[in-house]
Amino acid sequence: MRFGIIGTGMVGQTLADKLVSLGHEVTLGSRTKDNEKALAWAGRTGPNGHCGTFADAAAFGEVVFNATGGTVSVAALQAAGAERLAGKLLIDVSNPLVFSPEGELTLDPVNTDSVGERIQREFPEARVVKALNTVNAAVMVEPGRLSGEHNLFVAGNDEDAKAEVIALLGEFGWPAEWIIDLGDITGARATEMMMPFWLRLYRHFGSGEFNYAFRRRA
Amino acid sequence: MRFGIIGTGMVGQTLADKLVSLGHEVTLGSRTKDNEKALAWAGRTGPNGHCGTFADAAAFGEVVFNATGGTVSVAALQAAGAERLAGKLLIDVSNPLVFSPEGELTLDPVNTDSVGERIQREFPEARVVKALNTVNAAVMVEPGRLSGEHNLFVAGNDEDAKAEVIALLGEFGWPAEWIIDLGDITGARATEMMMPFWLRLYRHFGSGEFNYAFRRRA
Repeated sequence: MRFGIIGTGMVGQTLADKLVSLGHEVTLGSRTKDNEKALAWAGRTGPNGHCGTFADAAAFGEVVFNATGGTVSVAALQAAGAERLAGKLLIDVSNPLVFSPEGELTLDPVNTDSVGERIQREFPEARVVKALNTVNAAVMVEPGRLSGEHNLFVAGNDEDAKAEVIALLGEFGWPAEWIIDLGDITGARATEMMMPFWLRLYRHFGSGEFNYAFRRRA
Repeated sequence: MRFGIIGTGMVGQTLADKLVSLGHEVTLGSRTKDNEKALAWAGRTGPNGHCGTFADAAAFGEVVFNATGGTVSVAALQAAGAERLAGKLLIDVSNPLVFSPEGELTLDPVNTDSVGERIQREFPEARVVKALNTVNAAVMVEPGRLSGEHNLFVAGNDEDAKAEVIALLGEFGWPAEWIIDLGDITGARATEMMMPFWLRLYRHFGSGEFNYAFRRRA
């Protein structure tokens, strides 16, 4: 299958590597055609790895990942072009992190809106699913790094789109029963707002290699 | 030990019942002396259960719980009186929940502030610890209702105060190693901002009887 990935950071490259390792074809998209990280990635990846602009990646992908920072995601996807996203599954893995000079984290947007919702509003013909934004990149593509059962969350307005994401996550190693459906795209608020908690836990554990699990009635 | 509980709702009464069952003495405080819920609680509780105003509860307690709704907590504690809270451990279990007529949850304050921080700012001589606001009332006082290890979080500026909270949680049945210290009182933001996620999970599980656990490197 052909995937377009918008964003060349650690998350975008990790997703791209995993997809290529699974036999898929990927275009890693950046703001400019001559992005060094994207060129280096495509250079070392072999025939199934390409790079290009945001628009190139969106045009290439049957499925598109938004792996940009959440505060710039709408602008990056506008550069990719609404017409290249129309009708496609658009998996939004972003978080709208804003760090102060002192390292304090706040979110923008927050509380009454989310990046996931903004993207769905701005690109009404895309089938947006919020997913994977609650774990670090290594865990995203290799859930077996952590012991035992742990959970991911999906939110989106299109039930078929969420089912397609759950199937793709299955290729990544996530059993379907580990995925919790939080409802429509407003559920993106809930998972984005976990980031301040996630960051505190990261500092507590001294590692981003952890994930949420749930305990129920004994 | 003597406890004052500010707030007569389900959380306040559940904490009060647990404390009395452990042999402590409790005054359940409400806005007015003739609050029917508080009178009924004291009437059925026996000699170690009292009721009164917010000020009565704060004066009575060597330790004070804030179990009011987070949007009215500062006002309730102002009614209790800063001089009656000075020097005391003040355990803030509130969340600043605002529900729209459609049942949509937002928080106030959020992101750049929290109820825990507001209380510590407003009552600088109180030793504020944010705790217990991530689970429902039944789980707060009986962690064994859920299977396996699951976690609570504390945040506050006073290390001794957090140690006292962890000891008290031990009386409730929480092993000290299940309690994660999120740092100073700004950590209250992190746990308060989990509430939209908690509410989605509540709808997903069909029950509030669940809690967070963490998976680490295998």
